[in-house]
Amino acid sequence: MANEVYNFNAGPAVLPKEVMIKAQEEFVNYHGCGYGVVEESHRAPLFDEIIQSAEANLRKLMDISDDYEVLFLQGGASLQFAMIPMNLAIPGKKIGFCDTGEWSHKALKEAKILGNDIDMIYDGSANGFKTIGNAASWKVDPQDAYVHICVNNTIFGTEYQSYPETGDIPLIADMSSDIMSRTFDMNKFALVFAGAQKNMGPAGVTLVVIRKDLAERCPETVPTMLRFSTHIKAKSLFNTPNTFGIYIIRLVSEWMLAQGGVPAIQKKNEEKAAKLYAAIDNSGFFRGTCDKADRSKMNVCFRIGDGNEELEKKFVAEAKAAGLVGLKGHRAVGGLRASIYNAMPLSGVETLISFMNEFARKNG
Amino acid sequence: MANEVYNFNAGPAVLPKEVMIKAQEEFVNYHGCGYGVVEESHRAPLFDEIIQSAEANLRKLMDISDDYEVLFLQGGASLQFAMIPMNLAIPGKKIGFCDTGEWSHKALKEAKILGNDIDMIYDGSANGFKTIGNAASWKVDPQDAYVHICVNNTIFGTEYQSYPETGDIPLIADMSSDIMSRTFDMNKFALVFAGAQKNMGPAGVTLVVIRKDLAERCPETVPTMLRFSTHIKAKSLFNTPNTFGIYIIRLVSEWMLAQGGVPAIQKKNEEKAAKLYAAIDNSGFFRGTCDKADRSKMNVCFRIGDGNEELEKKFVAEAKAAGLVGLKGHRAVGGLRASIYNAMPLSGVETLISFMNEFARKNG
Repeated sequence: MANEVYNFNAGPAVLPKEVMIKAQEEFVNYHGCGYGVVEESHRAPLFDEIIQSAEANLRKLMDISDDYEVLFLQGGASLQFAMIPMNLAIPGKKIGFCDTGEWSHKALKEAKILGNDIDMIYDGSANGFKTIGNAASWKVDPQDAYVHICVNNTIFGTEYQSYPETGDIPLIADMSSDIMSRTFDMNKFALVFAGAQKNMGPAGVTLVVIRKDLAERCPETVPTMLRFSTHIKAKSLFNTPNTFGIYIIRLVSEWMLAQGGVPAIQKKNEEKAAKLYAAIDNSGFFRGTCDKADRSKMNVCFRIGDGNEELEKKFVAEAKAAGLVGLKGHRAVGGLRASIYNAMPLSGVETLISFMNEFARKNG
Repeated sequence: MANEVYNFNAGPAVLPKEVMIKAQEEFVNYHGCGYGVVEESHRAPLFDEIIQSAEANLRKLMDISDDYEVLFLQGGASLQFAMIPMNLAIPGKKIGFCDTGEWSHKALKEAKILGNDIDMIYDGSANGFKTIGNAASWKVDPQDAYVHICVNNTIFGTEYQSYPETGDIPLIADMSSDIMSRTFDMNKFALVFAGAQKNMGPAGVTLVVIRKDLAERCPETVPTMLRFSTHIKAKSLFNTPNTFGIYIIRLVSEWMLAQGGVPAIQKKNEEKAAKLYAAIDNSGFFRGTCDKADRSKMNVCFRIGDGNEELEKKFVAEAKAAGLVGLKGHRAVGGLRASIYNAMPLSGVETLISFMNEFARKNG
């Protein structure tokens, strides 16, 4: 390749270059064993070392105490939208939902399909999901079975700056698109889940961190594979997990520790986001799509003017030709989006900014 | 490496060497796009070409007509054990089960958890799952909602030689461990499913081939992710699938077509199995564990004498040192097992036979 390509896809997304190169080197012959990780039994010592190391790294990175189990499941966040109410709903009690975009809305829909009543704590649809506001001030019904939030809204480009105060009510967070991009206090949450394909690894692994006591709630009628207790008991090996995905998570988490852990990565993420948002705000050409106070540091959503679709199309095509791919906004909202996850280097953001400035100059 | 290593793991398992090398070459920079498949959006044209090509290859290899949908799901066969009754049970009707080993038994258990009554068509537990017999002669209740079989029993080393005659009752087959190892008539089956990690690719993808009309049975109360109709409508892209796994399936299916398709591969599999079973039977030292007529051509289960655990342990350790790995039997039954899937070359089986003969000579 003559030029570096920067991949701004929202997920599956860019992985650290060092991880990609290491995984490539080891692909056919892992540590001299004569075959690849992808070919190894999930019950072999070789894989055992990988999954245990991945878990240990994640525990370190997120400061997860022994009160929590770390699970590597399948089915993405979308399956969690069903599994969580199947396991944790309580007959006669409502489930609290804070609806800040597409993914919290989908989760809410699944809870309803399963017959649950909803305590609507926050409904962002009224403002087009452009803002979140002070989540710590939201009123939670103390009778709720649990409260569900999605802390970063990949499609609308917003991110929680504070969390609802739920007291003894289990707070459950979908962290798919910003997990380990910033520090957070795990002890505030009863369950945290995330599809791996944004900040952790390839698609096809769902990380679930669950407080041990919570798994006991599950009714007897829930199928074995859909019970958290099954996977806790079997240490994520009840059936064959996505072994290659877990292996990449191990490499990514190792890379994160080498970077200085989440605080160091957060600092870099803040720098990248600040630069990109400044470029948008100072352009007089591009325009951010949501409230400045709630802007996501992972998914930077913007438009040209008030939504010039012709120019946006041109922008995406010319950016791609210049080696900047994946900048089209989600089909539900249109516009432009740059996903700048942990693995996106500052140089990628700087290259994008140069391209944006040039594009604005030519088309403004 | 000085010597070739042969991997006899039951799954995840050996993949074709050519596929491993190609996937390695393309890992960091797929077809010159500047990044890897594992980093690409599941909605990008690049991945679209991959999933469509994987589907087309599988349709060709198994001669799947347009009456069927081909789905790439997650959760393994174990999640299918729940999804299938959730989608296809009919209130007031029994589900027919043919219990030929661990996996059909687990499927049966899930159907019961979901409140279904069982029509026990065949119960192999009486003979320790050592035989299957003439499945075509089994009596099926014409009122059954559907009939479930597991055509190859990885743990016990048996394989169906004929199938139950179910008439209009949908016949559902778990083909996890022998899919595309031998020809079969898809039109006999209403639904066929298989974890990818034995004959198709890495762990974390479940192939489901389902007759279109069947998906309409599903009740409204089933969560969106657990309905076949969801994945049919979205062409396996309702949520992010295991993109890397699907990519490897595409390469493996391409490799299979280049080998001459399933009939050519079946011929090789028959040769491999015949040689290995002959070596066992002629050794006066090793002993096959199940009825000769029902022996699996994929999972060759055997013991030393009547089950000499000490010698079996020694065998596994010395074989490993000689570059023959994964020969320990499943923990549920003990003994020895050589899984000789499509990707295991004849040279691997011949090397194993030489080692076995030498081991018998030294320890017999």
